[in-house]
Amino acid sequence: QLFEKESSTYTYLLADKKTKEAVIIDPVLETVERDSRLVQQLELKLLYAVNTHVHADHVTGSSRLKDIFPGCKSVLSEASGGKADHYVDDGEELRFGNFALEVRKTPGHTNGCMTLVLSNAVAFTGDALLIRGCGRTDFQQGSAETLYYSVHNKIFTLPDDCLLYPGHDYTGQTVTTVEEEKKLNSRLTKPLPEFVELMNNLNLPYPKQIDRALPANLICGIQDTSNK
Amino acid sequence: QLFEKESSTYTYLLADKKTKEAVIIDPVLETVERDSRLVQQLELKLLYAVNTHVHADHVTGSSRLKDIFPGCKSVLSEASGGKADHYVDDGEELRFGNFALEVRKTPGHTNGCMTLVLSNAVAFTGDALLIRGCGRTDFQQGSAETLYYSVHNKIFTLPDDCLLYPGHDYTGQTVTTVEEEKKLNSRLTKPLPEFVELMNNLNLPYPKQIDRALPANLICGIQDTSNK
Repeated sequence: QLFEKESSTYTYLLADKKTKEAVIIDPVLETVERDSRLVQQLELKLLYAVNTHVHADHVTGSSRLKDIFPGCKSVLSEASGGKADHYVDDGEELRFGNFALEVRKTPGHTNGCMTLVLSNAVAFTGDALLIRGCGRTDFQQGSAETLYYSVHNKIFTLPDDCLLYPGHDYTGQTVTTVEEEKKLNSRLTKPLPEFVELMNNLNLPYPKQIDRALPANLICGIQDTSNK
Repeated sequence: QLFEKESSTYTYLLADKKTKEAVIIDPVLETVERDSRLVQQLELKLLYAVNTHVHADHVTGSSRLKDIFPGCKSVLSEASGGKADHYVDDGEELRFGNFALEVRKTPGHTNGCMTLVLSNAVAFTGDALLIRGCGRTDFQQGSAETLYYSVHNKIFTLPDDCLLYPGHDYTGQTVTTVEEEKKLNSRLTKPLPEFVELMNNLNLPYPKQIDRALPANLICGIQDTSNK
């Protein structure tokens, strides 16, 4: 787990210690140097740079990482509408060494959001589920109702002690569990109509980096070259 | 693991899920509300608020936590020179539920620094060892030579796959291992004379919060009441 302070984004680097094959989830452009140094120091073979969705709050580091690690493929969900080397859909797997990340579609924050699950024990929820919260649903085809069903059907059905690692946290918390969120999530424990009412009236400001981030992230991170 | 942005400090909350007994390591005054909410939400019984040392860069949350959780005891090492409810020395244990934190004295950053080790599998190193770095040794009875021996004799002797959780990280990294640091720590892999030379010539600025933090932390965190 790695943290980028400006956008409070978590990046995750997973690797099989034996085969050295690795996957990075939600890399940020500003921290590519740190992350690539870590991949090199640990002598990993980076197979995939996955984005859980097309982010509106930061520019992805995928394309820059592909430049540094030529074998690495960018990954997005089919539904994301973005451009990537490899697309995944619900139920598919991303394999690295002796491990596999199971793809669960969890739309609602955006249409193309997915949660990545490792051995039913650890899940990377992107912005579908945050610690005691969830991603906003007021742009990028967001839908509060869709998000509610995604979390309840695709995340809360994981084992109670499954660790949940979010895409962001703004208070310095790093991890939660299915049990904790089923009990303590201030938004998603509400009945559906109340949740929808709440989400539709958050009146959040327009994301600071959206005009820079969205066009870039739709092509996995670089705007100024034509071959990415 | 919990993060405080201003001072880039990590706080750790450990608990036995069965007995609910818990320990907090290096709480920060500014995040006491978040941390106490978490203790309450998880229905934990906070036994100890431990400081790995008398910090110079932030004010500890120990005293405030004691107010909120009356059974909670503040803990420092014997050598720290600070005031606490309970003192620990090398080789002693702090028990919570079915777990125990082993105290290892690791002076050098300050005289009273300790590393807390859980089952030889996870260690909380305070500022003795940071990810790819270490705490400065130019004030509070710091000694580069002492720090070098502390890390090599008390931390690098743990199993290679032992997870190391630092007191700070300024780049968003969250965890490392004994193996990684023995190989990749840019300071502590040097021979002793080079390490001492390096540490004695860092020319770091005076810590921003030291004049506020040190007097407060010597009495576990509150200056403005006489009974703490």
